[in-house]
Amino acid sequence: MKAIVVKPGTKGFELKDYDLREKLGDHQVMIKTLYNGICGTDRGIVSSKLSFSRPQDGFSELILGHEAIGMVKEVGDNVVSFRKGDYVVPIVRRGCGECLNCKVGRSDFCETGKFVEAGIRGKNGFMREEFVDDEAYLVKVPEAIKDIGVLTEPLSNVVKAIDELFQVQRRMIWNCEDGAYSCRNAFVIGTGPIGIFFSLMLKTFGFNVYLLNRRDPSPKEEYISRKINATFINTSKGLSDLPKVDVIADTSGFPSAFIPLLNKMNKNSALILFGTQSGDKTQIDADLITFFVENNIALFGSVNANKLDFKEAINYLTMWKEKYGDALSSMITTRVKPEEASKILLEKPSGEIKSVIEW
Amino acid sequence: MKAIVVKPGTKGFELKDYDLREKLGDHQVMIKTLYNGICGTDRGIVSSKLSFSRPQDGFSELILGHEAIGMVKEVGDNVVSFRKGDYVVPIVRRGCGECLNCKVGRSDFCETGKFVEAGIRGKNGFMREEFVDDEAYLVKVPEAIKDIGVLTEPLSNVVKAIDELFQVQRRMIWNCEDGAYSCRNAFVIGTGPIGIFFSLMLKTFGFNVYLLNRRDPSPKEEYISRKINATFINTSKGLSDLPKVDVIADTSGFPSAFIPLLNKMNKNSALILFGTQSGDKTQIDADLITFFVENNIALFGSVNANKLDFKEAINYLTMWKEKYGDALSSMITTRVKPEEASKILLEKPSGEIKSVIEW
Amino acid sequence: MKAIVVKPGTKGFELKDYDLREKLGDHQVMIKTLYNGICGTDRGIVSSKLSFSRPQDGFSELILGHEAIGMVKEVGDNVVSFRKGDYVVPIVRRGCGECLNCKVGRSDFCETGKFVEAGIRGKNGFMREEFVDDEAYLVKVPEAIKDIGVLTEPLSNVVKAIDELFQVQRRMIWNCEDGAYSCRNAFVIGTGPIGIFFSLMLKTFGFNVYLLNRRDPSPKEEYISRKINATFINTSKGLSDLPKVDVIADTSGFPSAFIPLLNKMNKNSALILFGTQSGDKTQIDADLITFFVENNIALFGSVNANKLDFKEAINYLTMWKEKYGDALSSMITTRVKPEEASKILLEKPSGEIKSVIEW
Amino acid sequence: MKAIVVKPGTKGFELKDYDLREKLGDHQVMIKTLYNGICGTDRGIVSSKLSFSRPQDGFSELILGHEAIGMVKEVGDNVVSFRKGDYVVPIVRRGCGECLNCKVGRSDFCETGKFVEAGIRGKNGFMREEFVDDEAYLVKVPEAIKDIGVLTEPLSNVVKAIDELFQVQRRMIWNCEDGAYSCRNAFVIGTGPIGIFFSLMLKTFGFNVYLLNRRDPSPKEEYISRKINATFINTSKGLSDLPKVDVIADTSGFPSAFIPLLNKMNKNSALILFGTQSGDKTQIDADLITFFVENNIALFGSVNANKLDFKEAINYLTMWKEKYGDALSSMITTRVKPEEASKILLEKPSGEIKSVIEW
Repeated sequence: MKAIVVKPGTKGFELKDYDLREKLGDHQVMIKTLYNGICGTDRGIVSSKLSFSRPQDGFSELILGHEAIGMVKEVGDNVVSFRKGDYVVPIVRRGCGECLNCKVGRSDFCETGKFVEAGIRGKNGFMREEFVDDEAYLVKVPEAIKDIGVLTEPLSNVVKAIDELFQVQRRMIWNCEDGAYSCRNAFVIGTGPIGIFFSLMLKTFGFNVYLLNRRDPSPKEEYISRKINATFINTSKGLSDLPKVDVIADTSGFPSAFIPLLNKMNKNSALILFGTQSGDKTQIDADLITFFVENNIALFGSVNANKLDFKEAINYLTMWKEKYGDALSSMITTRVKPEEASKILLEKPSGEIKSVIEW
Repeated sequence: MKAIVVKPGTKGFELKDYDLREKLGDHQVMIKTLYNGICGTDRGIVSSKLSFSRPQDGFSELILGHEAIGMVKEVGDNVVSFRKGDYVVPIVRRGCGECLNCKVGRSDFCETGKFVEAGIRGKNGFMREEFVDDEAYLVKVPEAIKDIGVLTEPLSNVVKAIDELFQVQRRMIWNCEDGAYSCRNAFVIGTGPIGIFFSLMLKTFGFNVYLLNRRDPSPKEEYISRKINATFINTSKGLSDLPKVDVIADTSGFPSAFIPLLNKMNKNSALILFGTQSGDKTQIDADLITFFVENNIALFGSVNANKLDFKEAINYLTMWKEKYGDALSSMITTRVKPEEASKILLEKPSGEIKSVIEW
Repeated sequence: MKAIVVKPGTKGFELKDYDLREKLGDHQVMIKTLYNGICGTDRGIVSSKLSFSRPQDGFSELILGHEAIGMVKEVGDNVVSFRKGDYVVPIVRRGCGECLNCKVGRSDFCETGKFVEAGIRGKNGFMREEFVDDEAYLVKVPEAIKDIGVLTEPLSNVVKAIDELFQVQRRMIWNCEDGAYSCRNAFVIGTGPIGIFFSLMLKTFGFNVYLLNRRDPSPKEEYISRKINATFINTSKGLSDLPKVDVIADTSGFPSAFIPLLNKMNKNSALILFGTQSGDKTQIDADLITFFVENNIALFGSVNANKLDFKEAINYLTMWKEKYGDALSSMITTRVKPEEASKILLEKPSGEIKSVIEW
Repeated sequence: MKAIVVKPGTKGFELKDYDLREKLGDHQVMIKTLYNGICGTDRGIVSSKLSFSRPQDGFSELILGHEAIGMVKEVGDNVVSFRKGDYVVPIVRRGCGECLNCKVGRSDFCETGKFVEAGIRGKNGFMREEFVDDEAYLVKVPEAIKDIGVLTEPLSNVVKAIDELFQVQRRMIWNCEDGAYSCRNAFVIGTGPIGIFFSLMLKTFGFNVYLLNRRDPSPKEEYISRKINATFINTSKGLSDLPKVDVIADTSGFPSAFIPLLNKMNKNSALILFGTQSGDKTQIDADLITFFVENNIALFGSVNANKLDFKEAINYLTMWKEKYGDALSSMITTRVKPEEASKILLEKPSGEIKSVIEW
């Protein structure tokens, strides 16, 4: 079996034959990989910048890959939910089994930190011809979206964050007079796949969405913004055109990107932190804290997703495909064969929204 | 009628005869003031540092005072909930009547900012011999706590913040294995009345509470900490003894006070911003943002309280008096007559927790 | 303009020219009707069995019709959300403007009962060539589902009920070990459009769904059940094959239909009452009450839907169309022209799931 | 050690020397019993009417008693929350350890039914001179309420039910215009200790409370109703004086008691089922179901309580004692020595609200 393998702590990766001799357990499913998506985490591991990456216990290397879609090749004797030929997406994080959140299926809120994440830390990932996984960690994908199902994993994290947003905002009445959200504005900072997913989610709930970047949109970004009726703003040209805002989703991780926007925040508004970076610094002062207090403003960091979020992500992809046509598939800007993986793992292709490996 | 009157925008205050010729409406109650509490906001208005203070429409001066307890002298013809002799506390903020939150009795989340606040902005306050108020803005106080009922208003704001904390933390399972909170640690930054109330509330829910200040405790603080079984920590001696923490309540408003503590925060923890200040600055970097993201950490500012919070505050005061004896009444460190108000309005008495005016 | 008109309190209906001389206000939209759906309420009004039906103020007759989809013909000067050519569904209930729920856009929970409902009570309905409505009471439908958008209104009521189910069940941990609902069984009593929508919703959340009727399935019912992977059960053949159940949705309104199933209810389960009927009687005893108490069982009646439910209904229809292909459109079993409306308003066509009028 | 012992399945009880030779584990506490409360469940076991009662594994007899307060005699080496001399109340139900609710400390929602309950099923109870229990199953009681702390257990169940009420009613805006509940009416059916606790809880939240029984109040009931400002209604004199109602709490278990009141229920109202009985029958018809549907009415059975409910019960008892003086202690109408237990276990003393055994 071919697999894309890294040595955490060392730069680079290798596409090589790598036989794990996995046996199919009674509650397990064997899956032929169709596509892997690439994100900053994959490149961070390959460039050896992410210190938390580590091989699975008993291994010295790690198979990369946490975004995937595959087709069921074979099912174990006691598998009830899947059949040969089904399209499936695997869940990334596997809980610690110790804390209460993991015990009730919410490993995205694992408290011990003893979870593993396929392709990232402590568990081999999905960048390989095929893999065996427990039925419990798979979600089914309708055939109708097999072309974009590889987007499920990144979207699932956004689904969780938006779900958390509405939970947090139950602090007060946050809807508009008509019970919906058309009176609410949202800024999404960053226009990568996560930024586009935040925009799609917030549009779906009826928010007026502003996609912010420090440059003009690429043609693809322009196309997608128009399709989903969001407004792309080049913030390098000034912030004065921006309206007051009710929710900001930062996908950049740079405090210098979102701090200057905070004075646009309405009373009762919320800031979602999603992006992770390093190296950027900025100053805050007591007036900002007072502003948060006086205006009942909330902020939360959100990471990972649970199984229900994966299922909802698939529902959204299905709905959006029917509604927006090729807006979703146009997010996949580069498709390469495993042999060409260096083109997308070692560098970021120009105009990339999402690059995938096609097996 | 004697009243303590300020001219917002001008330093100082005056105790003078001030007849508002208030008539008692059908749904109104006339109240003889017993005590007023003094807080930083009062001193900020008197020292002309709070720019948002303004007189009631049609007035050039403002009667100060938003913390009060009084006794009903007379009730209007259609008043149903109060009788002569009842002890009452008035609510401070009166909603805008326009936004959805104000329409459903949640003016603490007013969105328009068009609310008024008695003794602060746009409405005469309670530092006067007597006042007339609408039945709807009064809450009854059991006679048993008439001595500490003046603490209701400051506590109500803490009740709201704690209520919001539990709302925000419904993001995940946050309780301990036994369904309660004894496995959770809380830091309360600042040991004034608000800090003590946060400590009392969090103790009541079973948290292990650490009261933090940059100095050793005063004898009163030591007494109260011991009574309520909280640990007083002098943070100027270092932070290394502090455990990991699940909730931080900042009552200081200084980012330099709480930012150094954030690395103690557990996964899924929350930071409550309650204090307001100016002039303090500190630097944050992208690693802090990443820390918030990777650990699902939430933060929210909280201000004001609604009527239900006032009622719950009274319940807590009643319960704590029975449970802790004089711990609550010992929070009232200074009592002065209106004629001596300058002793507590122009300066902060040494060892003050809460100063009150006795009418 | 042709319209289908009734005289509440009198049997029958009339298709006739009926000019309301509606003018297009600044915030209004003129809509060309495409389809009307027919439900039991329409037939109840036509047969004069629903005593609550009444004309709009100032009218002696009522235009029938509360399920509709149309296309925008013209928009008022200040309309922002709609353009000519858009597909739209109108909302049925218009709130009282007095109670808190109506004030915050939740007229489905109107407390005063002073709401009006288009085509039912106090407001002319949509069975007419065209109608004018306020922008605020319209929701947009993607062109992709213009063929099934007429199902939005009935589905919206189910969306509300399911939303309420999850709200009520936040009493405890109700999800399965994996965070989803595949360990949960659901019975849906009645296999009309509402029964099918409950099944689709509960399947979408991962429940094992059993569609119950007192007869064998029609070919259409069999087709749809198979497509959505639900199990059709003919309860006249006995209940012994039925498993224990976690949620029952009754769409029949007959206590004699659901009372015998209650002993299948698991601890912590819930019963949704949705169907309305008359004439059926059954006996309950104290043991049933004890059973509800000992097992923490909840039950709730649910009626109507708010704007957000309409929007979600459209999302679900869009997603299901992409996922299930013609399962949804096959629910529309009869299409007639307005001139033939008696075929579906005076009687129920054989094998009907949903009958519609095509304008 | 003296203990009150039953043989489940056999009538009667015995006060006898019964040495369990319990050893004090590291995380355990030895408690000297002060009082046991008696409720219908105790009498049901003694009269052999409750078929679910059973001894602890390995025993042929069961020590009775699930309502208790005691004083700590000795603590195990690793006990952190209790000291000698502390007053404590033990929790009754011990979870199955298997289902998700038990895993997160919510054994009151145990799904497997494999829990045990001290003094009722599968675990020896507290009607004995002393007992050893795990620290995790004890809650501390302030000395100030040692006289009424024995009421904690019955109140805890009401606390849970009221908590569930507010959870269920988050379906809509249920508060009044001022954010509180003074516009809401509540009926409490039955005037035993549970009925009085429901009244106290609902009064505490500001409801107008009507205590309903089929007879005139006893002097004690009259005294307590007056103290807590609730209205006692003798329903045998007719129901026409009763207003419309927003919540009904039935503590009787007789459907014939609450069914006739249902037509008083307002839109969006809720019915709490708490009482358990047998033998009573009544008829319901489809119109009642329609009434529930059209008015969004909810109903739920509630049983048992978790640790947090016990803690809150203690808070309420403490608050009410300070506020209402002897209203609570006057609920304890009979105090007997263990030797006289037959006076309260075999019969119900005249005028009883709560009978207790004093050790």
